[in-house]
Amino acid sequence: MADVEKTVSGEFILEGERIDDLQCGGYRLIQKPEGFCFGVDAVLLSDFAKIRKGQRVLDLCTGSGVIPILLAAKTEGESFTGLELQEAYADMAARSVRLNHLEDRVKILCGDVKNLRDLAAPASFHAVTVNPPYMISRHGLTNEYEPKTIARHEVALCLEDVVSAAAYALPDTGKLFMIHKPFRLAEIFRLMKQYRLEPKRMRLIHPYVDKEPTMVMIEGVKGGRERITIEPPLVIYREPHVYSDEIFRIYGKR
Amino acid sequence: MADVEKTVSGEFILEGERIDDLQCGGYRLIQKPEGFCFGVDAVLLSDFAKIRKGQRVLDLCTGSGVIPILLAAKTEGESFTGLELQEAYADMAARSVRLNHLEDRVKILCGDVKNLRDLAAPASFHAVTVNPPYMISRHGLTNEYEPKTIARHEVALCLEDVVSAAAYALPDTGKLFMIHKPFRLAEIFRLMKQYRLEPKRMRLIHPYVDKEPTMVMIEGVKGGRERITIEPPLVIYREPHVYSDEIFRIYGKR
Repeated sequence: MADVEKTVSGEFILEGERIDDLQCGGYRLIQKPEGFCFGVDAVLLSDFAKIRKGQRVLDLCTGSGVIPILLAAKTEGESFTGLELQEAYADMAARSVRLNHLEDRVKILCGDVKNLRDLAAPASFHAVTVNPPYMISRHGLTNEYEPKTIARHEVALCLEDVVSAAAYALPDTGKLFMIHKPFRLAEIFRLMKQYRLEPKRMRLIHPYVDKEPTMVMIEGVKGGRERITIEPPLVIYREPHVYSDEIFRIYGKR
Repeated sequence: MADVEKTVSGEFILEGERIDDLQCGGYRLIQKPEGFCFGVDAVLLSDFAKIRKGQRVLDLCTGSGVIPILLAAKTEGESFTGLELQEAYADMAARSVRLNHLEDRVKILCGDVKNLRDLAAPASFHAVTVNPPYMISRHGLTNEYEPKTIARHEVALCLEDVVSAAAYALPDTGKLFMIHKPFRLAEIFRLMKQYRLEPKRMRLIHPYVDKEPTMVMIEGVKGGRERITIEPPLVIYREPHVYSDEIFRIYGKR
């Protein structure tokens, strides 16, 4: 309750922001409804990522910080670092960390994925998570430099920047957990292999069981050998407006 | 009826062989029950492969010739060439072609995929299909040189031989349709890209909707750009012993 009062007094949220319940151990997240809000992809990735006790995790393109906050809530990882380019998002994420009293385990850095070498030591994390901008940058985007565009389109960084940064941050056997669009799967595999992050596990996410997948989650292992496990399809809706049992399980766990 | 009589007289089948109904336009296939018999994978690949009117198709590792015979029955392709290493299989496949009066459209060649350069001109086919040996060769196989082992294990050729031969046989925009095991997906993508056969379409085959896939079908386009469509899962069984509607459709179409 104290936090809510603080919120009202403006200590946690700024104009245009709101506090959403993460429905996971009482954790909450500050978001700006007009901006890029976390979606089901962040929740699914935080379920797909297997983080073990004592591990140090780096979340690239962290945005509102939803992934490190969910992972701190759900796993016994030691520390979670969220890296965000846009100062307004990084500031909002840092306030969410304080709102949840997670300062000991979650740290938000404002910086560019492309400059990770200046921000962190090589091979200094056990795992990297990333929900990067999905769309290939195109000329003619009308709002090219708006915060939402930077979160969604590869205007500030490309997939290779993300994979290269993950490879830098991980030692051999370190793991990358990424969620992305299926149409880029061949490119994702190519880049991961190029940076010695072998695709070892993959799961496709389908809105309905008889529809094309809309997202794919991939686990890469640095220096792993060439053999992949493809998991059963993750189906979101059993029927229109009714979540599948697995989605209930994942959200229930949150 | 005439054919059946011929069969009884031994003109078409040899000792230990039998004639199976392909349930597709009255076409039949000679098989040797003790050997490697065609399975659901050949049927699914012949549905996945999109062959247009007038196209010339090469089927590598054709075995009993089931794929060219099914494709001749189901498509308006001009010609279908099945290449088989093992003489006994190639002979059996050629007899199936005659049994079905398909000599004008289907040709069986006995030869090694690794020597395709001596058997066919470069870029001389519009499409290549292949249901190759799935298993990586291992030392200690007790029956390493038996016909069934050669059909199932990469003792006589490896995946790279198959992809390299397909790339040789196809011009730019030519298509490769392959069925394989999902655990080799990363390797398949790597080799296809290495030989400029861009993975453009993929479908995973699951025994049940909530189980891991047991097979994957991939369409590669020579010189295609890097963007892939992943289709809805192909589910074999709706419940134990009951095929899914799609399997009924595919088998009904045969």
